[in-house]
Amino acid sequence: MSSEDVEYKAFLRRRRSIRRYTQEQITNAELSDLMEIASLAASAMNEQAWYFAVIQNEEIIQAMGELSGLDNPYYGAPTLIAAFARQDAIASVIDTTLAVSNMMNTAVADGLGTCFIYCTKDLFNDPRHAELRSTCGVPDGYECIGSIVVGHPAEEVEEPQDRNQDIYSIIR
Amino acid sequence: MSSEDVEYKAFLRRRRSIRRYTQEQITNAELSDLMEIASLAASAMNEQAWYFAVIQNEEIIQAMGELSGLDNPYYGAPTLIAAFARQDAIASVIDTTLAVSNMMNTAVADGLGTCFIYCTKDLFNDPRHAELRSTCGVPDGYECIGSIVVGHPAEEVEEPQDRNQDIYSIIR
Repeated sequence: MSSEDVEYKAFLRRRRSIRRYTQEQITNAELSDLMEIASLAASAMNEQAWYFAVIQNEEIIQAMGELSGLDNPYYGAPTLIAAFARQDAIASVIDTTLAVSNMMNTAVADGLGTCFIYCTKDLFNDPRHAELRSTCGVPDGYECIGSIVVGHPAEEVEEPQDRNQDIYSIIR
Repeated sequence: MSSEDVEYKAFLRRRRSIRRYTQEQITNAELSDLMEIASLAASAMNEQAWYFAVIQNEEIIQAMGELSGLDNPYYGAPTLIAAFARQDAIASVIDTTLAVSNMMNTAVADGLGTCFIYCTKDLFNDPRHAELRSTCGVPDGYECIGSIVVGHPAEEVEEPQDRNQDIYSIIR
């Protein structure tokens, strides 16, 4: 194994869920890389059955947080990316999650932090919030599966000490 | 951005779905890395609500392929990893998919290929195949969400030319 490969695994190991952010916005180049590498994810029958609403408007993020009824669910991050799966596709929740995972891993390369925020799905899939959906340009026929926040970490998060390694059986 | 970071993104971009494999088995060290980095994935409320059956028995993989009714669904790969999500967890299909995504990306570092094979869920979730489930040591209360095959690629796959980049809106 080359040292490049070792370094690559070190990056994959470096992702943490970040729950404090600075106010500095991510750059367009960073966003563009997140989306491009997301688009390279595997999808069932290559349907690429995903869509993303990238929300960088502080008022909207604030309002969504309040609607959720939770205390500061978006952690003050400057970017919220809501993820949508096409409902008539074969395996679009999985496809879309693979794409989001690529975003989360890509962010590490730029020193950005992310956190998966599941509760966003309840907002976007609630007919009472149809206006939010249309503000965000979400196409018809897509359901929200959750979201990530993205930004510059304002905290250091230690290596996880709590990972269960007893998660598989081998059948030979 | 450092050259290391550029290299990391290059690795993330390098993943392809591989549909031809050599007979060479993956090593225990490679498997161990796949599982360790999978275990570092994000999960809702840190539930880590995933389980994996690593099947390296050629006869079982063959029999599963025949049961599926599809023509060679596992592409002759020497390792099949079926992924299971705990049914009473908050967001376990997403959690488990994030863990599988980490496996798919980690494999690239070792020159291994992977392919997501969705149809495996139909086998493991069918009560008629309870014996397969117990052979594979799957705990009660977990549903299969799909699988990946892993092995040494016996084909070169070109860069994807067909990726839709029009997959997001920005709300500022």
